[in-house]
Amino acid sequence: MSVIEVPQNSPFGRDNLPYGVFSVAGGAPRVGTRLGDTVVDLSVVLDDPVFAAPSLNPFMAQGPARWAQVRESISAIVAGDLPDNALHPVGGVRLHLPIEVGDYVDFYASEHHASNLGRLFRPDAEPLMPNWKHLPVGYHGRSGTVVVSGTGIVRPCGQRKAPDETTPSFGPSQRLDIEAELGFVVGAGSGLGDRIGVDTFAEHVFGAVLVNDWSARDLQAWEYVPLGPHLGKSFATSVSPWVVPLAALQAARVPLPGQDPQPLPYLRGSQDWGLDVDLVVRWNGEEVSRPPYKDMYWSPAQMLAHLTVNGAATRTGDLFASGTISGPGKHQRGAFIELTWGGREPVTVHGEQRSFLQDGDEVTISATAPGPNDTRIGFGEVTGTILPAR
Amino acid sequence: MSVIEVPQNSPFGRDNLPYGVFSVAGGAPRVGTRLGDTVVDLSVVLDDPVFAAPSLNPFMAQGPARWAQVRESISAIVAGDLPDNALHPVGGVRLHLPIEVGDYVDFYASEHHASNLGRLFRPDAEPLMPNWKHLPVGYHGRSGTVVVSGTGIVRPCGQRKAPDETTPSFGPSQRLDIEAELGFVVGAGSGLGDRIGVDTFAEHVFGAVLVNDWSARDLQAWEYVPLGPHLGKSFATSVSPWVVPLAALQAARVPLPGQDPQPLPYLRGSQDWGLDVDLVVRWNGEEVSRPPYKDMYWSPAQMLAHLTVNGAATRTGDLFASGTISGPGKHQRGAFIELTWGGREPVTVHGEQRSFLQDGDEVTISATAPGPNDTRIGFGEVTGTILPAR
Repeated sequence: MSVIEVPQNSPFGRDNLPYGVFSVAGGAPRVGTRLGDTVVDLSVVLDDPVFAAPSLNPFMAQGPARWAQVRESISAIVAGDLPDNALHPVGGVRLHLPIEVGDYVDFYASEHHASNLGRLFRPDAEPLMPNWKHLPVGYHGRSGTVVVSGTGIVRPCGQRKAPDETTPSFGPSQRLDIEAELGFVVGAGSGLGDRIGVDTFAEHVFGAVLVNDWSARDLQAWEYVPLGPHLGKSFATSVSPWVVPLAALQAARVPLPGQDPQPLPYLRGSQDWGLDVDLVVRWNGEEVSRPPYKDMYWSPAQMLAHLTVNGAATRTGDLFASGTISGPGKHQRGAFIELTWGGREPVTVHGEQRSFLQDGDEVTISATAPGPNDTRIGFGEVTGTILPAR
Repeated sequence: MSVIEVPQNSPFGRDNLPYGVFSVAGGAPRVGTRLGDTVVDLSVVLDDPVFAAPSLNPFMAQGPARWAQVRESISAIVAGDLPDNALHPVGGVRLHLPIEVGDYVDFYASEHHASNLGRLFRPDAEPLMPNWKHLPVGYHGRSGTVVVSGTGIVRPCGQRKAPDETTPSFGPSQRLDIEAELGFVVGAGSGLGDRIGVDTFAEHVFGAVLVNDWSARDLQAWEYVPLGPHLGKSFATSVSPWVVPLAALQAARVPLPGQDPQPLPYLRGSQDWGLDVDLVVRWNGEEVSRPPYKDMYWSPAQMLAHLTVNGAATRTGDLFASGTISGPGKHQRGAFIELTWGGREPVTVHGEQRSFLQDGDEVTISATAPGPNDTRIGFGEVTGTILPAR
């Protein structure tokens, strides 16, 4: 039996306790939590077969009352003596995609990002579309290509056509980009024809992850009218391996920056679901941006209420992401197309002028949020390296 | 033991043998085929546990060599004496969603439909976007709301704003519509970073179904810029219960009507995957349209090649649909917004002038294709009734 030592100021302290799926050499994937630099095997310390599953879905499907109960149990358990066969150093485990993804919807909830992209993609028009401040604009992405942090990202090929070219050409994307986002995982779904109200968000959403929605801007610019992004996004979306429970984000809840015009009643709620999460984007290890989630225009509770207001069902494992997080400052932009203004204002990475991603580049997004008693709640990181086109 | 009697000219003759999932009172869903008006329980007549599964996915995952082998076995088995416990009158079984849907992608492959919708949604611009003849435009839909024929369709609520209104309003859709489509089911998937060539279509695609992609045109018109349709489509997509194997559609294969300009090399193939499938749309029982699939501009083999050219993985159960099938004639249009020209030219249904769907309306789409020796291969039907908004 051992007691877990938690390094001082660890972003994985006793108030975080995120959930993930891990394996050790020769063992099957199962559910764990992380405390400090130790992974605790929940299939050993809790008596429920859901923790021996290769995804969080069976546990998430048990619903919010059970989530609260399990969090309380874990809190008590990790404070005491633990059997040694339940403990693994985090460096010695393999982390897997924590959820079996149902549907994946990506929103577009940052006013700064939507305005920047409007200016870049449609320079002759108003940057924000007339609908943008009335509803959280979003679209379905490809759930089958959601991958866990660390998965290599093969540079996608596809069609692109610059405005001054008469016909499209085919080849590897020349404008490969990132989108730094937060993702929200539906734990308890809703039936066909039902709605999830803004104030019942926490009864359905289990937790949050970091998302890098890799984007091939040249493919996207040519294909996206009139039905939206497809191949420019569908090749890969990376998520962080630890799902931070909503309960760990209570101290991070803040009011939204303000909505004008006031949204329609189904998008109004009495609870604050703005989140004071600070992201950091590193390009080959060098910090290039610090996107602030608290500046987002639409809350995740509004996103889910909108997503279901037409009666669309949700399922355990559904993932919806915020869209790129960009603040008002240049070095708060969560996509390189914004940070380098379409490639025209390169940034310096290890002394080199860089705009879009080159083969071999690694991008790492990390984040923390305020926890109780001046602690920080860590999301860990989502990272990926660009592999050459096949 | 019994021999199945097949009514003359049955669209479910010995050359069709589609796959579905059915149950009888008190029994679990399992895999069957249909011959004439008889459902044959494949879990009884074939010795493989995949046929006792509640979806076709485990069988489809076995791959194309196995699909051919099983089709040959079934062909021989249904010609002889069959155990009575394997046989059920089709009217006595419940038919279920035949596949567990992975990702659902909807294309936009009819030139007539895309041109009509361009004229209706963007009256002041060129109807076809510049990319339309270079790539099969498509987008991801919601796989969690794909439902089997017969499922009631709750009228969706959402935001809409007419061009002459200054702010959006909320309420039940007033322009509820259908889209008559063919859907293609991926049986054998492909890995992340890999591509499916146009000429390897049949190694991956298991079969085809009828699709009704219900559409709320008022919601869609307001929300769809710039990221494409979302709530206007995500409330429900209905599919027919019988998956017609590609092998049953050999006699239906025809050349495409012609592509100009010639598409890029990755979209060119040596095989014909145009399909001579005739659809019939009935509104409360009255025929209102006969969309011809053979007029589609892009083939399903091109759709799948495009979908994966960026390295997007595919999975067993992925569904991709053609988009609305519309021919050049008015009564060949597969959506009511086209058939009634935005509601301005109503059609007569049982003596009433009708444009969009009313509560209680039933829409049924059926289809047949040429089979060997002057037979017809039936797809059965996909039907749904509109329930009042909640």
